[in-house]
Amino acid sequence: MSTAAHPGTPASVRQTAQSGLYAEVQLFYARQVHHLDAVRAQEFAATFAEDALFAHSPDAPAVRGRANIAAEVSAYNKRRFQADPVQRRHWFTMLDVRQQADGSVHTEFYALVGTTRPGEPRPVIAPSCIVRDVLVREDGELRTLSRKVTQDQELIG
Amino acid sequence: MSTAAHPGTPASVRQTAQSGLYAEVQLFYARQVHHLDAVRAQEFAATFAEDALFAHSPDAPAVRGRANIAAEVSAYNKRRFQADPVQRRHWFTMLDVRQQADGSVHTEFYALVGTTRPGEPRPVIAPSCIVRDVLVREDGELRTLSRKVTQDQELIG
Amino acid sequence: MSTAAHPGTPASVRQTAQSGLYAEVQLFYARQVHHLDAVRAQEFAATFAEDALFAHSPDAPAVRGRANIAAEVSAYNKRRFQADPVQRRHWFTMLDVRQQADGSVHTEFYALVGTTRPGEPRPVIAPSCIVRDVLVREDGELRTLSRKVTQDQELIG
Repeated sequence: MSTAAHPGTPASVRQTAQSGLYAEVQLFYARQVHHLDAVRAQEFAATFAEDALFAHSPDAPAVRGRANIAAEVSAYNKRRFQADPVQRRHWFTMLDVRQQADGSVHTEFYALVGTTRPGEPRPVIAPSCIVRDVLVREDGELRTLSRKVTQDQELIG
Repeated sequence: MSTAAHPGTPASVRQTAQSGLYAEVQLFYARQVHHLDAVRAQEFAATFAEDALFAHSPDAPAVRGRANIAAEVSAYNKRRFQADPVQRRHWFTMLDVRQQADGSVHTEFYALVGTTRPGEPRPVIAPSCIVRDVLVREDGELRTLSRKVTQDQELIG
Repeated sequence: MSTAAHPGTPASVRQTAQSGLYAEVQLFYARQVHHLDAVRAQEFAATFAEDALFAHSPDAPAVRGRANIAAEVSAYNKRRFQADPVQRRHWFTMLDVRQQADGSVHTEFYALVGTTRPGEPRPVIAPSCIVRDVLVREDGELRTLSRKVTQDQELIG
């Protein structure tokens, strides 16, 4: 089996691991999520490609482009949490990474969202999601070119 | 301290990390779990060695062999969820990986199970488990040779 | 941008990943946490530097030094859980790792604590935290030199 012809075949697994790509993607997501949960909308948007497509919730229309992603993250947080101070966390796990022949990287992972409110140490943990990203490189660095978040609710609706 | 004589000693940690083995195991588990949670029983079973031993629950007898693992996963899901449509997720974290002198790989990690039902965005999160696997290579690719899942309940019973 | 002058800039991301440092830190934390959750206080403390600073909870004063860390972990578990047998789990996720010019490593990650009690398969999941560590090497091996745990409650209080 040729890796180039069949991205995602077993042969590519060790290549992905040994090249450091898997760890690089993990680091990329850690920093992206830290920006998101601190509501640093500009810094979060800067981890997306210039013309990225961002479909993050069934309750919000998909947006395109860094400026619109930053605006959407700000607006979403204001809409939902302005009168309800929270600390949100996004926990990404079970990350699959598949290098593509065209240089892009396809990822698939689970995301779980936690929301802690004052006076209640137990976070509300919902929703559980599956996320599919296409990553590309800009000036050598990973950027999200597209993100599609699907909530588990949608899969059993 | 010699790594070969003392697998799991500090010297082997950096070797495991630099060789890409740690990332390879993470990728292996991500894909294995994606099969499990999508109830792709054949594809899930194909990540086990031909004669693997699979002890996944205190409520189900251990089974041996790929065909029996596939049958058990199908039957388990049918038994529990046929009249109760759910999306399950397995979140594996805190993964320890120890290369053995005989070429096998011992792993130990936490597993948390989430179950989302229609109309309720909050997954039921239970049980919390610890998993011990032995991994081997078949045609160069990692396969689970044995899995023992222990629920936290069993540890404090 | 120079990596040495600006640790944490994009150039260092790939270096961190390719050198295996990211995986090494993940392995380090997996083993440290397994000691903690099994209440192996001595083994847990041995993953800290000789004169480490450990600020693990807003309800407990920070302690310094391996012997005091071991004593604090034992006392904390005795205080809280002697009359309440539990299995605790610490789930670390979204790990950021930044190699510093002085050889130390700064990390930042999420920690979620789960507590399972007899007769109740669902763990109580709280609190959600953010952890900042400084890691150093002793005899070539990673050790935690300082740890500051901040609970999400404290961030919105």
